[in-house]
Amino acid sequence: TQRYEHGHDAADKGEYRHFMLKEIYEQPKVIQATMEGRLTDSKVLEQALGTEAEKLLGDIRHVQIVACGTSYHAGMVARYWIEELAGVPCSVEVASEYRYRSHVIQPDTLFLTISQSGETADSLAALRQAKKAGFRAALAVCNVPGSSLVRESDLVVMTQAGPEIGVASTKAFTTQLTALLIFTLALARHNGMDASKEAEIVQALRQLPRQVEQVLALDGKIADLSRAFMDKNHSLFLGRGAMFPVALEGALKLKEISYIHAEAYPAGELKHGPLALVDSEMPVVTVAPNNMLMEKLKSNLEEVRARGGELFVFADGEAGLTEEDGVHVMSIPEVHPITAPVVYTVPLQLLSYHVAVLKGTDVDQPRNLAKSVTVE
Amino acid sequence: TQRYEHGHDAADKGEYRHFMLKEIYEQPKVIQATMEGRLTDSKVLEQALGTEAEKLLGDIRHVQIVACGTSYHAGMVARYWIEELAGVPCSVEVASEYRYRSHVIQPDTLFLTISQSGETADSLAALRQAKKAGFRAALAVCNVPGSSLVRESDLVVMTQAGPEIGVASTKAFTTQLTALLIFTLALARHNGMDASKEAEIVQALRQLPRQVEQVLALDGKIADLSRAFMDKNHSLFLGRGAMFPVALEGALKLKEISYIHAEAYPAGELKHGPLALVDSEMPVVTVAPNNMLMEKLKSNLEEVRARGGELFVFADGEAGLTEEDGVHVMSIPEVHPITAPVVYTVPLQLLSYHVAVLKGTDVDQPRNLAKSVTVE
Repeated sequence: TQRYEHGHDAADKGEYRHFMLKEIYEQPKVIQATMEGRLTDSKVLEQALGTEAEKLLGDIRHVQIVACGTSYHAGMVARYWIEELAGVPCSVEVASEYRYRSHVIQPDTLFLTISQSGETADSLAALRQAKKAGFRAALAVCNVPGSSLVRESDLVVMTQAGPEIGVASTKAFTTQLTALLIFTLALARHNGMDASKEAEIVQALRQLPRQVEQVLALDGKIADLSRAFMDKNHSLFLGRGAMFPVALEGALKLKEISYIHAEAYPAGELKHGPLALVDSEMPVVTVAPNNMLMEKLKSNLEEVRARGGELFVFADGEAGLTEEDGVHVMSIPEVHPITAPVVYTVPLQLLSYHVAVLKGTDVDQPRNLAKSVTVE
Repeated sequence: TQRYEHGHDAADKGEYRHFMLKEIYEQPKVIQATMEGRLTDSKVLEQALGTEAEKLLGDIRHVQIVACGTSYHAGMVARYWIEELAGVPCSVEVASEYRYRSHVIQPDTLFLTISQSGETADSLAALRQAKKAGFRAALAVCNVPGSSLVRESDLVVMTQAGPEIGVASTKAFTTQLTALLIFTLALARHNGMDASKEAEIVQALRQLPRQVEQVLALDGKIADLSRAFMDKNHSLFLGRGAMFPVALEGALKLKEISYIHAEAYPAGELKHGPLALVDSEMPVVTVAPNNMLMEKLKSNLEEVRARGGELFVFADGEAGLTEEDGVHVMSIPEVHPITAPVVYTVPLQLLSYHVAVLKGTDVDQPRNLAKSVTVE
């Protein structure tokens, strides 16, 4: 009963039941492809961002990121990286918001758009509008060569995700993150990042394909876990720092394909309102590589245990968390904190996939949604 | 069956069934009080912000706002104002996020905290941490004189909301907005806003108490409307621009006191995911003073009409919207676009109040929540 109306004749699900699952499993390969020719063992090859890259990146004092949907979540992760590694102030905004308001473009701003298709109407309109107001340069992170965003930008970092058929974006997101981290390292080098730090993060990038493989090996366990969500209509996803956008993306996947109303919050905001919602009907998912956040969360949630609130934790196996009444732990391999957002995205993709399959929804073509939003 | 554990012996519900309703009805008076002594007929009296205000505001080139919960939503509205009216770049961030990440404080930054109690642990920690990193000046918008945030800031704009007993903040929010707009006008004067524009917005401010009265007169109609939400477990709130934070705040109220899982989205993001959720079980609330947004929304929602999706529109009576199948319109008096966020907040407060009363929840003391979050 699947309908595919995208005209990608070349696409083939192969051994997979759905394109989405195939695309989740392609991630080690396409992340690798996105790094290809752009990294040595210890460095980013800046010229891979364009012949003008070196000259332009040296001038950049601010980054303004504009994107929609999943690409916006990638931009939110990039903001953490850009401020932490490059020390360059960065703003990120939903394209449909950016284009309709008065904004201030600071001098020497890099205007960064992120879009799988390169044709997202609001992102393109935002770029054209900002161009009139003036900025130093435009950078596109995009999956489609020759698309409008690519043609209209000064610098481009192509993602090498290949065609993505599932409407719910998976490999496009993780390759966007990969491309954005490569860009961040290039920018950081112009802003005082030392060679040893660059080498450390390049090594972390190079480990991503293997680490994503390790997470994919958890598929069966995640499928088991997904049964707990099958009869739920709500879920709360919590993260902190660069893991908050990962929580947003995890919640969006569950919304899109399982029609569960999943909402993400920065973990610290839980007690400022959403905690009132938590009961046995609203499982709480946390994405927390280490246990610093966990201790606070557990104390927040103690009072809702009596109401049957359940916690599903995706955390570093080394965090020393144990299963206990109402707390379910999925151990994720230890990863570098900077690249953790890429790795932790994958189990959340698998979770939403399995919930959708259990619910019997149209996984690859969810109701009401189009693959690329090329109308306003 | 109401419990009040706040120790405000002086507080009295008077003729009202709940403190929250009393506090909603106090808004014309407390908004007026917050303007008192700070405005002439055409100008903001800058010295009301502190003796150092004139000197400091002239130096400010960036504003960093940090807050939690409802106060964070007030900060999001202020960001639109600051960038539009003063042309000064402004960032706004959840305090619990700000304090735990690497961030860049730009030169000549005003660090603006917003907190009803002035004791919110995360906001206070963020201010202290930022002080070490260095900024030009700190401004607090606060309701409690002598609180920690007030004592540790260079400039203060007190809100004159009086004691707020209901855990779900109402009058504290609208007085924060009033104070933040007064501050924005003072900052804008140092950044090229001309006297006629200032006079126009001061006039708009002065009309707020009367306009809020007009909205309060819609109470009966809103109570009728609230019946449609009584048996719902979900709702989606949409807004655009400065009305997006108003949608966030409306959704938060519904979450806090009615335990309905209400989530807000910038309207343009609807088609990037959440549209998949919309059916007869998830009413969509829009906060749109004019009908520009409405036309787009109606086309987005056309395809979910077949699934029973219903739209509740709070819009300017002049927008020419009519009730039709699946579209319910609540006409709001015509207001200046800049002050619209204050006015449009009020019907959403009333909506959540009436839904909670119908559901029989503990309106003034929702489960799991505390009035002031003074622990981390």
